[in-house]
Amino acid sequence: MLPLEAVPNFSEGRDRATIDAIGNALGGRARLLDVHSDEDHNRSVYTLVGSEEELVAALLAGIACARERIDLRRHEGAHPRVGAADVVPLVPIQEVDAERARAAALELARRVGDELALPVFLYADLAPGRGPAFFRRGGPEELQRRIDTGELAPDFGPRRLDDRAGGVIVGARSPLIAFNVNLAGNDLDAAREVARAVRERDGGLPGVRALGLRLPRAGHVQVSLNVEDWRSSPLHEVVLAVEREASARVLNVTGSELVGLLPAGAAVAAASSLLGVVGLDSSHVLELRLLGE
Amino acid sequence: MLPLEAVPNFSEGRDRATIDAIGNALGGRARLLDVHSDEDHNRSVYTLVGSEEELVAALLAGIACARERIDLRRHEGAHPRVGAADVVPLVPIQEVDAERARAAALELARRVGDELALPVFLYADLAPGRGPAFFRRGGPEELQRRIDTGELAPDFGPRRLDDRAGGVIVGARSPLIAFNVNLAGNDLDAAREVARAVRERDGGLPGVRALGLRLPRAGHVQVSLNVEDWRSSPLHEVVLAVEREASARVLNVTGSELVGLLPAGAAVAAASSLLGVVGLDSSHVLELRLLGE
Repeated sequence: MLPLEAVPNFSEGRDRATIDAIGNALGGRARLLDVHSDEDHNRSVYTLVGSEEELVAALLAGIACARERIDLRRHEGAHPRVGAADVVPLVPIQEVDAERARAAALELARRVGDELALPVFLYADLAPGRGPAFFRRGGPEELQRRIDTGELAPDFGPRRLDDRAGGVIVGARSPLIAFNVNLAGNDLDAAREVARAVRERDGGLPGVRALGLRLPRAGHVQVSLNVEDWRSSPLHEVVLAVEREASARVLNVTGSELVGLLPAGAAVAAASSLLGVVGLDSSHVLELRLLGE
Repeated sequence: MLPLEAVPNFSEGRDRATIDAIGNALGGRARLLDVHSDEDHNRSVYTLVGSEEELVAALLAGIACARERIDLRRHEGAHPRVGAADVVPLVPIQEVDAERARAAALELARRVGDELALPVFLYADLAPGRGPAFFRRGGPEELQRRIDTGELAPDFGPRRLDDRAGGVIVGARSPLIAFNVNLAGNDLDAAREVARAVRERDGGLPGVRALGLRLPRAGHVQVSLNVEDWRSSPLHEVVLAVEREASARVLNVTGSELVGLLPAGAAVAAASSLLGVVGLDSSHVLELRLLGE
């Protein structure tokens, strides 16, 4: 049996002490595989694996740490957020473990509400149709306003966002690929146009979410992408689409970066496409055959 | 600790009973992951994993089975060979296991000579500079002639090739990628020219071996490739080179097929190249991080 994965996103990408403290809280209770911090996003994405019990314990400790150390009122960064621990997905590495991931996420959500007294909003597989963007638009103030008008309510915990730590979006979802394509220059509107052109919400590629962001410290703009369905929208087609849309706006792609880890299937799909080998999938990759049996 | 891999090639790709009998002999003692049989090559490539002891036992049983069931004197096929069990590489899945693979291969070679009374020729990491082609050119008759003149000698077993089963080429080597690119038409000379243009031996891509073959049953010709060093010669560059050389000879590529399994690193390298993500390697693939620790 393979472990489950969790990919919590925390709203701190600059202060090394806080980034490390959260990493220690997570890594002391589960296996921490990767930390991706971005100063402009002011955000860190942790990748960890473990059993249900290990991950729930690790995430509770990490969220508690973030609650102590991050003050959203003093936070500024390019990436939208509504919480110190902003979004916490549990991820089945194999499809067969989807129910394990949902159960662990629900347990975590309940305990974050009960034990840490933070409002918790379920998303993705635990609240189909609701993505992080549903909660984040307008930021914490707008989210509180929608709670107060009765438009939505936290699924666990208090109805009042924590002044310092906000709320936490918790759910289970399939593996996705997070990556950023950097574009030369400072034209945020153009980056946003590229994001709109490629994302599903505005008629672009299926399973693709995208935001145009300005990164003042790095000195360029960026299309920040989540590819939620790499079978429908192969990664290289997403990259090509971004390049095409950027080029149409006289923007140069200067590089791409992966956030967190890549699901093996997506790498194999890219290889299959490049090689013209029909039917090549993870079952044809030696190391992947050694897993989970 | 990961298992070792073995990828024995047997000179039977048509008779289902023999292909299955060899598979059962191998699979009863180690874990059989893949069997790739080709009627035109008249050859089957088995991929198995296990401990040193499991693999040596499995391979001895498989070679004994092939010795009983395959008669090289009645064999015809597109792929060159000198034995019923033609070439038997032991492969370290991780570089750190290279010495384990060499030791297991040497043990196997000694026991094939002693217990099965077949001449064994060491190659690859056990006889640097000697590849399968060194032994195969001219077939079993030429190999026997070279033994008789003293040009070379078996490393284990008798000095006389077995009338039915020939000899066995045994060694250890790094993971490689075996794949075939099919070309429309019947022009064997053109396929051989393409093979020469891309292979290292004739000034082509480093670590690439290639043969032009005619496949009368399938009704086309083929470039059969081994990419021994996918770091130096990325797979997609090899495929592009074949396509370019074929196109220059007015040959159409009709498809590609993988023989056996793909090393994960090669798939990740292809993905990295497609995505333009600098530094993307196996350490960034989730499932691969779960292995071997």
